[in-house]
Amino acid sequence: MPRQITAFSNSTVKLLRSLRDKKARRSEGLFLAEGLRILTEARDSGRLPEIVAFSPEGAKHPLAAEIIAATEAAGGDAVETTPDILSKMSGKDNPQMLLGAYRQPDTSLERIDRSAAPLWIVAQALRDPGNIGTILRTGDAVGAGGLILIDDSADPFSVEAVRASMGAIFTQEVAAARWPDFLAWLRSGEGELVGTSLKATHDYLEAEYRRPCFLLIGNEQQGLPPEYEAECDLLVKIPMAGRADSLNAAIAAAVTAFAVKASWR
Amino acid sequence: MPRQITAFSNSTVKLLRSLRDKKARRSEGLFLAEGLRILTEARDSGRLPEIVAFSPEGAKHPLAAEIIAATEAAGGDAVETTPDILSKMSGKDNPQMLLGAYRQPDTSLERIDRSAAPLWIVAQALRDPGNIGTILRTGDAVGAGGLILIDDSADPFSVEAVRASMGAIFTQEVAAARWPDFLAWLRSGEGELVGTSLKATHDYLEAEYRRPCFLLIGNEQQGLPPEYEAECDLLVKIPMAGRADSLNAAIAAAVTAFAVKASWR
Repeated sequence: MPRQITAFSNSTVKLLRSLRDKKARRSEGLFLAEGLRILTEARDSGRLPEIVAFSPEGAKHPLAAEIIAATEAAGGDAVETTPDILSKMSGKDNPQMLLGAYRQPDTSLERIDRSAAPLWIVAQALRDPGNIGTILRTGDAVGAGGLILIDDSADPFSVEAVRASMGAIFTQEVAAARWPDFLAWLRSGEGELVGTSLKATHDYLEAEYRRPCFLLIGNEQQGLPPEYEAECDLLVKIPMAGRADSLNAAIAAAVTAFAVKASWR
Repeated sequence: MPRQITAFSNSTVKLLRSLRDKKARRSEGLFLAEGLRILTEARDSGRLPEIVAFSPEGAKHPLAAEIIAATEAAGGDAVETTPDILSKMSGKDNPQMLLGAYRQPDTSLERIDRSAAPLWIVAQALRDPGNIGTILRTGDAVGAGGLILIDDSADPFSVEAVRASMGAIFTQEVAAARWPDFLAWLRSGEGELVGTSLKATHDYLEAEYRRPCFLLIGNEQQGLPPEYEAECDLLVKIPMAGRADSLNAAIAAAVTAFAVKASWR
């Protein structure tokens, strides 16, 4: 049976609230996902929350009831609470009526099986958690295996990133590594490193991409550092028709990833 | 000579601050753009601010000095102020050292010259100003003429949209219209209305696109309403490889727009 909690001072409420903060996510090893759609995506991918919190309204949906029951059956904690408290947890005025705290997966590079997918997205020093989530969502749609975050990056398990991923945080692999460690890992097996650069001579639509393709996207402000470009096996250029000389990082990732996929048809 | 303002209570400070609010933007007919890069983009597109505000540090850059001088020469107001006051105006802890208030352009559909570009992006009821700005930036890069916002939409002149546009708010046309008015305008001249839909039978990479192409993007939550899809001359599908059944709206716009452009090469 779910516990009922109506006090803001309750320790589970405090724990869930704290997960909006990166330090707490680190120390607890948990992250927050909100809403029936994303929690259903998680469940369909074989993932259940360690804690599920919901309003009486939220528990009424049959899919929500299933997730709550499955969480309890797996030894997790199910907590019925008020919309006000859910609002405090999610930091939104109109909170979702269902949210879950999930165990963070191991993000070490060694866990990645590069043969599991023909395409992997590698992003360097992304600052915007929304971009990380959007790239995960795009990766799922384009059939990528996952996202490898290089150097200091926004947290892929932040509420904003999870929200923007629309559930892809549960379906895409996520790894994090420093650049030298990534390079060593990359060169220890098959794989072509492809960067996008305005200085490239290959048009992105005419290049030949080999599998597995590791698509390297630069940071929002500076793009790829020259020494990172120098390590690429292939540099491709997306022609810019207007005045601007760059695309948003998540857009560049998507346009290139879909072009790579199209080239394989 | 620039005026010096150090009081938060100054009326120009209050005016610029108020432009973070949609109502004030409407009544004043102005909007805020921040940072040397975007203000330079504006100037290169023949646009000067009516008011330019800057810190002594911000005025040191030769391009900033030029914009300040040109604004004054054109009868605009140049205001030297403190980083603290700039921070209040932009709502950011680390404000840009230069910002400008620009006259909002007329957004009536009648101003759009459809023959000026082969591609136009049409977006329905977008909620996220960041998506609007990102679509403008993408439109610039892909050689679109501009963005037509259908129905109730986030404000393209909000600080978030202008920021995400990276200056494309000054290079792309922006129009806003209700759906019936847009349809009447569209059908009064040449143009193919292309929608993306999971129900479509045409693959987005294999379709033939005619010019001018009006690419219709649905809202973030629901996608295109069926009656809007029914009006499209062509419905195309982006195949989804993973579990998700949709892309972020700005990503869908970009992937489709670049595919349309590629089909014309």
